[in-house]
Amino acid sequence: MSKLRLGISMSLDGFVAGPSQSVDNPLGIGGMRLHEWVFPLRAFRQMHGLEGGEVNDSTAILEETFANIGATVMGRNMFGGHPGSWDAGEPWNGWWGNNPPYHHPVFVLTHHARAPLALEGGTTFTFVTGGIEAALEQARRAANGKDVFLAGGANAARQYLVANLVDEMGISLSPILLGQGERQFDGVGSDLHGLELVRTVAASKVIHLKFARV
Amino acid sequence: MSKLRLGISMSLDGFVAGPSQSVDNPLGIGGMRLHEWVFPLRAFRQMHGLEGGEVNDSTAILEETFANIGATVMGRNMFGGHPGSWDAGEPWNGWWGNNPPYHHPVFVLTHHARAPLALEGGTTFTFVTGGIEAALEQARRAANGKDVFLAGGANAARQYLVANLVDEMGISLSPILLGQGERQFDGVGSDLHGLELVRTVAASKVIHLKFARV
Repeated sequence: MSKLRLGISMSLDGFVAGPSQSVDNPLGIGGMRLHEWVFPLRAFRQMHGLEGGEVNDSTAILEETFANIGATVMGRNMFGGHPGSWDAGEPWNGWWGNNPPYHHPVFVLTHHARAPLALEGGTTFTFVTGGIEAALEQARRAANGKDVFLAGGANAARQYLVANLVDEMGISLSPILLGQGERQFDGVGSDLHGLELVRTVAASKVIHLKFARV
Repeated sequence: MSKLRLGISMSLDGFVAGPSQSVDNPLGIGGMRLHEWVFPLRAFRQMHGLEGGEVNDSTAILEETFANIGATVMGRNMFGGHPGSWDAGEPWNGWWGNNPPYHHPVFVLTHHARAPLALEGGTTFTFVTGGIEAALEQARRAANGKDVFLAGGANAARQYLVANLVDEMGISLSPILLGQGERQFDGVGSDLHGLELVRTVAASKVIHLKFARV
């Protein structure tokens, strides 16, 4: 069966977002620092239609993260926008502009029903109000044999972890402190729900940890 | 000047001890799991007068941790024992028996004055009630040009970090969750007080991160 693969960036003190998160700033204060390793990469810039950039030990990790992915599941804050504005005169269509970097079906966990949204380049957003298992089932069907990427945020990731539904977990650990914010593992408990560390790659400003079912 | 070098073992979710810590069980419930990487090592077993054991990628890290150390500073819970019993009929002399593995002067941060304690093999425990700077000053003098090891626990480590007194920090990160307990970095804030990641070594069941002033 196709795998559910979680990918997150986390600080040394366990935060995946800084304090004062909101739908306008889902990473919270300082949270962007968690992703500093990815922005300079040529592979990342290409995904977003930009030229230039560098190749380093993170490149293969980033490429692997998105290889063989046929669909994505994400939490509602990751899609962003105020629910009240979703169906208003100028609806919120996500952070990524008219041509999002997914190029495959994306399923958004939400309590607010909304019609599917088809954007350029093959990315469609489907809004699922039936819970995490319904979203995963739809994503698996859409992925058509490929794997499903779980993009976060923390709350969505936590729900899938606790339900033992995550088959692989990539943590890109930034050697920084955020001090406050949202912790990935609060409430997950004291075991990794079947996951074990299987690989460590140290790169510039980040350590990539790969966990899998063994 | 001689460096102050901190060494800790921490879980993926940032804990250095499990819940229900006490002077009788300073690692808390499950906290021993943080140290599972060290017990099988021949180098560790030798320090504790035991034979056998294995050599792996953690061996060099453990040897480096204790190389060129002339004195140790530790918090009061790390020394252990109930203060009321320190000067009683059968005084508490630490966790390590009559021949502790330090073999150099150890300075214990405490609010309870006690006469120095000289044990076998060159280990002396000196109880310092004057605070972290006084303890460090005494340890530096005793180290006689060598470095000072900061053994923890979390509270002592935090105080030295926040005071910008830590020159090197080794974190042995266990890829496990504890879920509850004492977090190393709670209250430290959102910066590493001058420290930066300078080396990552992945070994069996642990990732060794070395931070230093750059």
